[in-house]
Amino acid sequence: MIPTKLGVVVRSIDRADGAAVESLATLGVSTVHEAMGRLGLMKTYMRPVWPGARVAGTAVTVLAQPGDNWMLHVAVEQCRPGDILVVGVTTDNTDGMFGDLLATSLMARQVRGLVIDAGCRDVASLQEMGFPVWSRAVSAKGTVKATLGSVNIPVVCAGALVNPGDVIVADDDGVVVVPASRAADVAALGQKRSANEEDKRKRLASGELGLDMYSMRPALAEAGLVYVDRLEELRR
Amino acid sequence: MIPTKLGVVVRSIDRADGAAVESLATLGVSTVHEAMGRLGLMKTYMRPVWPGARVAGTAVTVLAQPGDNWMLHVAVEQCRPGDILVVGVTTDNTDGMFGDLLATSLMARQVRGLVIDAGCRDVASLQEMGFPVWSRAVSAKGTVKATLGSVNIPVVCAGALVNPGDVIVADDDGVVVVPASRAADVAALGQKRSANEEDKRKRLASGELGLDMYSMRPALAEAGLVYVDRLEELRR
Amino acid sequence: MIPTKLGVVVRSIDRADGAAVESLATLGVSTVHEAMGRLGLMKTYMRPVWPGARVAGTAVTVLAQPGDNWMLHVAVEQCRPGDILVVGVTTDNTDGMFGDLLATSLMARQVRGLVIDAGCRDVASLQEMGFPVWSRAVSAKGTVKATLGSVNIPVVCAGALVNPGDVIVADDDGVVVVPASRAADVAALGQKRSANEEDKRKRLASGELGLDMYSMRPALAEAGLVYVDRLEELRR
Amino acid sequence: MIPTKLGVVVRSIDRADGAAVESLATLGVSTVHEAMGRLGLMKTYMRPVWPGARVAGTAVTVLAQPGDNWMLHVAVEQCRPGDILVVGVTTDNTDGMFGDLLATSLMARQVRGLVIDAGCRDVASLQEMGFPVWSRAVSAKGTVKATLGSVNIPVVCAGALVNPGDVIVADDDGVVVVPASRAADVAALGQKRSANEEDKRKRLASGELGLDMYSMRPALAEAGLVYVDRLEELRR
Amino acid sequence: MIPTKLGVVVRSIDRADGAAVESLATLGVSTVHEAMGRLGLMKTYMRPVWPGARVAGTAVTVLAQPGDNWMLHVAVEQCRPGDILVVGVTTDNTDGMFGDLLATSLMARQVRGLVIDAGCRDVASLQEMGFPVWSRAVSAKGTVKATLGSVNIPVVCAGALVNPGDVIVADDDGVVVVPASRAADVAALGQKRSANEEDKRKRLASGELGLDMYSMRPALAEAGLVYVDRLEELRR
Amino acid sequence: MIPTKLGVVVRSIDRADGAAVESLATLGVSTVHEAMGRLGLMKTYMRPVWPGARVAGTAVTVLAQPGDNWMLHVAVEQCRPGDILVVGVTTDNTDGMFGDLLATSLMARQVRGLVIDAGCRDVASLQEMGFPVWSRAVSAKGTVKATLGSVNIPVVCAGALVNPGDVIVADDDGVVVVPASRAADVAALGQKRSANEEDKRKRLASGELGLDMYSMRPALAEAGLVYVDRLEELRR
Repeated sequence: MIPTKLGVVVRSIDRADGAAVESLATLGVSTVHEAMGRLGLMKTYMRPVWPGARVAGTAVTVLAQPGDNWMLHVAVEQCRPGDILVVGVTTDNTDGMFGDLLATSLMARQVRGLVIDAGCRDVASLQEMGFPVWSRAVSAKGTVKATLGSVNIPVVCAGALVNPGDVIVADDDGVVVVPASRAADVAALGQKRSANEEDKRKRLASGELGLDMYSMRPALAEAGLVYVDRLEELRR
Repeated sequence: MIPTKLGVVVRSIDRADGAAVESLATLGVSTVHEAMGRLGLMKTYMRPVWPGARVAGTAVTVLAQPGDNWMLHVAVEQCRPGDILVVGVTTDNTDGMFGDLLATSLMARQVRGLVIDAGCRDVASLQEMGFPVWSRAVSAKGTVKATLGSVNIPVVCAGALVNPGDVIVADDDGVVVVPASRAADVAALGQKRSANEEDKRKRLASGELGLDMYSMRPALAEAGLVYVDRLEELRR
Repeated sequence: MIPTKLGVVVRSIDRADGAAVESLATLGVSTVHEAMGRLGLMKTYMRPVWPGARVAGTAVTVLAQPGDNWMLHVAVEQCRPGDILVVGVTTDNTDGMFGDLLATSLMARQVRGLVIDAGCRDVASLQEMGFPVWSRAVSAKGTVKATLGSVNIPVVCAGALVNPGDVIVADDDGVVVVPASRAADVAALGQKRSANEEDKRKRLASGELGLDMYSMRPALAEAGLVYVDRLEELRR
Repeated sequence: MIPTKLGVVVRSIDRADGAAVESLATLGVSTVHEAMGRLGLMKTYMRPVWPGARVAGTAVTVLAQPGDNWMLHVAVEQCRPGDILVVGVTTDNTDGMFGDLLATSLMARQVRGLVIDAGCRDVASLQEMGFPVWSRAVSAKGTVKATLGSVNIPVVCAGALVNPGDVIVADDDGVVVVPASRAADVAALGQKRSANEEDKRKRLASGELGLDMYSMRPALAEAGLVYVDRLEELRR
Repeated sequence: MIPTKLGVVVRSIDRADGAAVESLATLGVSTVHEAMGRLGLMKTYMRPVWPGARVAGTAVTVLAQPGDNWMLHVAVEQCRPGDILVVGVTTDNTDGMFGDLLATSLMARQVRGLVIDAGCRDVASLQEMGFPVWSRAVSAKGTVKATLGSVNIPVVCAGALVNPGDVIVADDDGVVVVPASRAADVAALGQKRSANEEDKRKRLASGELGLDMYSMRPALAEAGLVYVDRLEELRR
Repeated sequence: MIPTKLGVVVRSIDRADGAAVESLATLGVSTVHEAMGRLGLMKTYMRPVWPGARVAGTAVTVLAQPGDNWMLHVAVEQCRPGDILVVGVTTDNTDGMFGDLLATSLMARQVRGLVIDAGCRDVASLQEMGFPVWSRAVSAKGTVKATLGSVNIPVVCAGALVNPGDVIVADDDGVVVVPASRAADVAALGQKRSANEEDKRKRLASGELGLDMYSMRPALAEAGLVYVDRLEELRR
């Protein structure tokens, strides 16, 4: 494990396999999270700043200081087409570290989106530009450029560990992180899961119960589930 | 009062009168809450997962365990057309206990919506399907099926007591619970209130002040309200 | 400094210069906040109850009691065209102090919007009416009319000090307060900043880096920023 | 189920059996909560205002309005020796509804404590007096006496349903509610559990593992738990 | 009203009358808050970092930036014996801006305490030293010295407006601000209130009910309070 | 980077150097955090369940499921004298996963404490036993033993990445994580810092200002700090 350090920019990172990223991009966050074995999800306070956005890409990571977006400017230079910028902060902070100017710069480099454990501003412009952002807050609070953080080191963002090059998948359900080394594997599992769901959906739509489709009744009985006719019977 | 118990499903419940439910369905949550005497409102963290949804129906209740949606599957079987599934949890939890597959199953049974004091996922699909959900969080976090809760017992959901069969009214303003025994009464009061509001709206739109329309001036004077011309007068 | 007092209505206030208000109305909250020197922003929990609203106007202030909207009715009479009603509360409270009837009354007086450090209801109607509201919560919880507050005294609303007559600018990014005495000055600075941003936007869109455009590299180097090729180098 | 109503005081309530209350008083909250089948616990934000307090008694319930402690004064008259006053509020509120004067009054009636889903003040005096309080906040914010609530109706307090006469057990671990009808039963189960714990404690203190004492190994193996020697093996 | 400005230190402020401060120091926060007419209280998240502290003094104010304690060092020089340092922050922040070294410096100047809308560290040492602090968080997170704030301008701290020279009273119940111009007046009212409470306490201890002592019964009856014998009567 | 996996126990981990741990144990959390370069701190919601505890040790890590403490029992077997058990959870949860029985078991193995991003119960007993715990909540809520997590894999606990074998330092100021590979280095830096502080403390106690001791005046002047005599001067 490589210790986190401030004041460092790593130039070369190992991005997850491109085909795996594109495959994950066709799946929703919930499907990917299940395919991951229910790991890698960011906290639920991370919300899209405009609805309907959906994206997958490779992480360029930033560790920023509270109220300071200096390192976001540094990070832009490290981004390549298909990347997503992921920003963790050394302490809880909701300041508006990112707005439409930085988005313009990222779009010029074909970066696909931003995931930031802090605030975002210019949300109306971002929606017009079609640049997707997931953040913990919307805030017009301006930031300074005074203290160093780092770029492309492992960061904790909204409770999830993100290594540079990992796949980020984000939609209206939230944000999930897939380690680069597991991208192909998780994509395959996710596609399979997605295919299975179609069949399940049809059976449920036709009126079949999940209790039967998933064969839950024996386990429920074994766990001791009791059916009574009326609430009043519980009084006895 | 019947004590809450885990591991029980009650099959037969007394649903509120259908005509009262339909009458309440035409009123907004704020009107119903006022007609109730300002009681029965769930906490404000309960928000629709997509905007514009509006629904009324009879409660089928679930008490679930954190991170476990087993009892939601059990509850589907107990639902009838016109019901709304209401889920309380034994402890604060935001996991995504409900998604588009369970929604498909509920829609197959003509259930009108879900109110859950936990998380919900697949929100984009739910909006497409037109299935309304009010929840405390949006979360892709998957859940297990391991521990029993109960179905159709009294539950506390987002700070409100819900008995099976009670009327649930929900819209963009939140969620309110009307006890089954009071449904007809509250519906009548709500319709009356709603009719009155039209007249008030017109008078206010024409420039009449609420101060005059509600005859507030004498009570304000009696309470000691003082008018001064300038802020500086308060210094003396 | 004039001490806050309960039970007082001030009739005559000094509203910010009209031309300055109109100028500020053309700028976004983030731009105004920067022009203010990064001061005057309300807390990020203040959100528009419907998206896309954007407004500027002069503050008529209210200090209300928890669960009590009596003073809002009193305040309506003090409003003039172009005003925005700003409501602080003596203690944290999310009750629905404001709904479509009060909005109708304010619209009849050409009031431009409401900023309330409490709850708001009838949000669907407010959106239809086009009346913009920024609040800390959406809540159907009804309020009483029992205890005096004040109108047009200085209030703290969502962490910001608002004096009667100050300019309020609000959009999807939040709410900012511009002291009346600084309105013209801040408007001028904001317009200048806004003009500058157009040029910056073009340069960034063409691929120029913020690092270069803002000449950040020397300061970063002086602060000690180090570039390495690979993460593994940090281990040594 | 009896619907909640405002403006009502119920004079005569069925208090839980005195011997059961005394038995529960000897057990901690965690033990009682387990004996209840892991139900009835109030939310974790309910904390003792001074450490080390420990109490059990029968509930006299209050439904109060935000910022208004009128009904607490009304409730005092309904209290008897051995009671605990339990206060729910119609909406989230942290105001200081209770202080040393009300505590003096309750102590004069041999009431054992207060559980309030709002604020409490004079905490230094309360500790000196030895009057235990569990609250969601400490707050000096004074309250009015303007709007009716109710006394001795079912209330939801900190997420738990409390019926008048139920047993309240509270200590440093929190607050649990035992329905009056289950008091004897739960007390018996709790005493048994408590006795069992002594034996377990000794075995664990001697170095026996919970894995063995509770025979967990087969179930863990069946669930698929894998032991590896080194973290690096997971990479393969 | 003087607008807030960054980068300014005001050297000479008008401190509240010393005798009034000493008089207020003998009263608790709750009493002072009531004497103020229930105004001036900071939010309830402001807690003493060690229990039992109790202090009154005159405010030297600081407006700090998130994660930056530079201005606290600047402010020390402006403090005199009997002062209390009051720190507001331009945005929500919990970093440990203050520790035992700054406390040592303040004690050398006979400053009586600190009230900070951010974090504090070295709390064990502070308790040993007997230096009282009220803060929103305890945090070891270190801060930088990079961005200017101001000293001795009006600040909003934990929701309350504090002008330099105002009286701060703080104890286990929280923190209240008394405007300098009202200090003598509020002290007198508070002493009177305190004296009155002694008599009330005695009457309540002897068993007299607040209902009678405060003559509440007629108002309760007029408001419509109804007494019933049994809960079941409400069903009818 | 080794991906996180559920259902795995790693038996052999590389614990930080014992001498470094003992050296870190003599320093407070704030000093260690500074020596780390202001990294590695857990979120401020992690608080000691009883005051005055202070400990350092090597991490045995657990990833647990919400409401489920099965893996804590599994982890006990992996603990050695001098370890501290560190528990992260797959989703936010406050349930009481740990109580006096597990503490008895850990004490039998000479484990020094527990750090848990969830709830803890039996806090009165834990204080009596002298077993220190840092947790996000105190909760009597019992947990099940139904779903696998992992032991001795990297976990995110309260926002900080913890690898098995890392040093945990915890006291009243919070919890900080020192990577095993940096333990000796950070201990040395911390001891130096601690020695330096003594001298600073003396100088500050004698009345020397931090402004002078740290030579801050030139940088403040360069940043543009302005001193004025009276607040009124800012109006011009």
